[in-house]
Amino acid sequence: MIKPQLPSGMRDFLPGDMIRRAYVIDTISEVFQTFGYEPLQTPVLELNETLMGKYGADAEKLIYYAQHPGGKEQLAMRYDLTVPLARAFAMHEADLSLPFKRYQIAPVWRAERPQRGRFREFYQCDADVVGISGMDADAESVSVIDTVMRRLGFRKFAIKINNRKLLTGIGQYAGLTGEALSNLYRSIDKLDKIGPDGVRSEMIKGGLEPAVIDKIMALIVEARPQNPYGYEVAASTLAATRETLDGIPAAQEGLEELDHMLRYLKAMDVPGEHIDLDFAMVRGLSYYTGPIFEAMLLSDDPEERVGSLSGGGRYDDLIGLFRRESLPTVGMSLGIERLITILEQRNAYPPNLSRTVVDVLVSVFTPDTRTASMSLAAALRDAGIRTELYMQDRPIGKQLGYADKKGIKIVALLGPDEIARGEVKFKRLANQHEVIVRREEAIAAARNLLNA
Amino acid sequence: MIKPQLPSGMRDFLPGDMIRRAYVIDTISEVFQTFGYEPLQTPVLELNETLMGKYGADAEKLIYYAQHPGGKEQLAMRYDLTVPLARAFAMHEADLSLPFKRYQIAPVWRAERPQRGRFREFYQCDADVVGISGMDADAESVSVIDTVMRRLGFRKFAIKINNRKLLTGIGQYAGLTGEALSNLYRSIDKLDKIGPDGVRSEMIKGGLEPAVIDKIMALIVEARPQNPYGYEVAASTLAATRETLDGIPAAQEGLEELDHMLRYLKAMDVPGEHIDLDFAMVRGLSYYTGPIFEAMLLSDDPEERVGSLSGGGRYDDLIGLFRRESLPTVGMSLGIERLITILEQRNAYPPNLSRTVVDVLVSVFTPDTRTASMSLAAALRDAGIRTELYMQDRPIGKQLGYADKKGIKIVALLGPDEIARGEVKFKRLANQHEVIVRREEAIAAARNLLNA
Repeated sequence: MIKPQLPSGMRDFLPGDMIRRAYVIDTISEVFQTFGYEPLQTPVLELNETLMGKYGADAEKLIYYAQHPGGKEQLAMRYDLTVPLARAFAMHEADLSLPFKRYQIAPVWRAERPQRGRFREFYQCDADVVGISGMDADAESVSVIDTVMRRLGFRKFAIKINNRKLLTGIGQYAGLTGEALSNLYRSIDKLDKIGPDGVRSEMIKGGLEPAVIDKIMALIVEARPQNPYGYEVAASTLAATRETLDGIPAAQEGLEELDHMLRYLKAMDVPGEHIDLDFAMVRGLSYYTGPIFEAMLLSDDPEERVGSLSGGGRYDDLIGLFRRESLPTVGMSLGIERLITILEQRNAYPPNLSRTVVDVLVSVFTPDTRTASMSLAAALRDAGIRTELYMQDRPIGKQLGYADKKGIKIVALLGPDEIARGEVKFKRLANQHEVIVRREEAIAAARNLLNA
Repeated sequence: MIKPQLPSGMRDFLPGDMIRRAYVIDTISEVFQTFGYEPLQTPVLELNETLMGKYGADAEKLIYYAQHPGGKEQLAMRYDLTVPLARAFAMHEADLSLPFKRYQIAPVWRAERPQRGRFREFYQCDADVVGISGMDADAESVSVIDTVMRRLGFRKFAIKINNRKLLTGIGQYAGLTGEALSNLYRSIDKLDKIGPDGVRSEMIKGGLEPAVIDKIMALIVEARPQNPYGYEVAASTLAATRETLDGIPAAQEGLEELDHMLRYLKAMDVPGEHIDLDFAMVRGLSYYTGPIFEAMLLSDDPEERVGSLSGGGRYDDLIGLFRRESLPTVGMSLGIERLITILEQRNAYPPNLSRTVVDVLVSVFTPDTRTASMSLAAALRDAGIRTELYMQDRPIGKQLGYADKKGIKIVALLGPDEIARGEVKFKRLANQHEVIVRREEAIAAARNLLNA
């Protein structure tokens, strides 16, 4: 006997989990489609060379490699859905028109150390636009995040917005370039975890002068308003920063992009209280080139501090790795595992979300009545009613108990007497209500009871 | 620059493909749910020891192995959805009730030599029942196949039905056991490919006596009726075979099971012309223990001879590999790649299946009118209308051409004049029909045009 076990960090989803996951995934894909994103699917395995060198050294240590005995190709399991999009777009562009707006909802694999809420196989939900350099695409990405969060019932959340060009400009303003600039990103990225003093000591360790550190911290931390949400606060922060960073082209370009994005977000009816301009938000991945954004829950409950629920940004150079000329690209990704964690904790699923897919259980009284029950079940199914035929030899009381435990609403009772009279008895378990109808009226009766 | 390439035998699915695949997958999962099967999801990676020794030596050469740098677990990508079901059931049975009826629609990986219609990553659609030994479960599996095929619009197809116990009995009747019996299965399995004479020479090569071969061929080939379809033919074939194999317990048990299955299939309204009792149908996998079944298209077109479209059977011993005592289990699997190949060849998708997910394109006249267009797009989406905002700077004629090429039904025209008058113009591309409405009536007007 083999002990039944799962690999570390991997999960099974039982039917109850799946019904709730399907609700979240369907909500998200409906929003993606509402914005005009179309489905694309890429394979789980990619050639090694497609993935390597795109995510940064730390990330690449987490990639799973795959091979079959005698296989000559070097294969790897996808680490995200973004690099596969770039590869797929470059391969198929002759069959696609621009802009190419695609979504993909699919698992990715990362061999991170498993911990609460962090898994080695997890779903990403991505929507991206290829071929648009204007900030309408970036604003739309943020509007997609906002719409998904609201459709899932979240009210108190903020979408942090920043710009990589501005971050580069801030580095230049402090006299940093190249390697020092990357280190700066890495230090700032830890602000939420280690606080301003922690970031300062990181920067000192990294060899930055105290005067340089002061300039940076003044811009990204001290200038941050007490209440950072809304379009007005964002506009005045932008204006002040524009003055401070006068004469630094990268910074001015980043600020200009942010200004456009904010105007578009307002036109798209994204509520101001969800907007949070935050110059200390960096995002880890190395491929971003312009606007970046990240959604966080605003909650006092430490159980709900699960990190960012969604993020994205512009990565204009990535497609250029697979194609002579690059194309501007921007997109967002939702981490449904964390969204589900929160929905579970809050028990915030729609109240009518069923525990089972089954609507009717057709009971079986005796071996002799089995074919009559089968025939009734077939007729109900043919009418589109989700119907389970009871398959064990148990007393009717047990069959009713099975339906009740499973959450099935209605049981069809078809004993020898009902069969002899050409009738069917239905019982609605919630209120023990019973109706007896002619066999020919069984479908209509079942429909009535289900809609009641 | 990296040349954008896919691994051998793997595919991307572009939006048009995906919309058609989603139609097939949604049809199948709706049928599974109609029969009361509930969703289960297992991870792509399993521990090696979970998969090894379950499929037979030939199959196991095709498994992909996976590992991350420094990872200590021996991992493999799933080869089918059946062994993972057995592993998952044994792990979670405390949280499940019997019967456990589950479905899973997901990709599996097999490193077979790629050829037309055969891929290394492909989807399986499985529905299985754990915990039922009665033939009602087996008959239901066949009824599920029949229902899916009919819902997808297929009319001329047959579901071959056989029983492994009967095959064992036929071997015993011819004096074969153990290894010789397995070889017999393998030879018979090739009947469709190499014909009766081919099977005969295989058997001779395998060391069988001509008299033995004659006995077997008489039962599995020569006794097969000219027109093998329908319940009456099946019943008389069963009766004749029961006499021939009198006194062989395995054979009688198999025939008894087939008799029950046929009675149940009739009660479940499975049309007789889809039923084909075929004692030469074996199915490759080694884990089957009782009834087996396989659906084939009945077509004269050689392009449509793609092999079996669906198959399944009873495998009562598999769960016992992960659990002290086994549990009776039966199920079926649909090969959607082949179904899709046929639907594509026949162009048999529903005529109203759209080429795009988008219903309305909101055009943008000038940079100055962009925010007004954004605001209209946001309002339409908020009302649940799938709306794309045009994002390039192109003349309106080009924007209409883009919508037409993509298959978008309606374009919203919102020029400076319309904005000044507080109006919106909608154009339905199919007939160039235009309506001008007040901005407040835009949602109702778009809905009307879409439903017209």
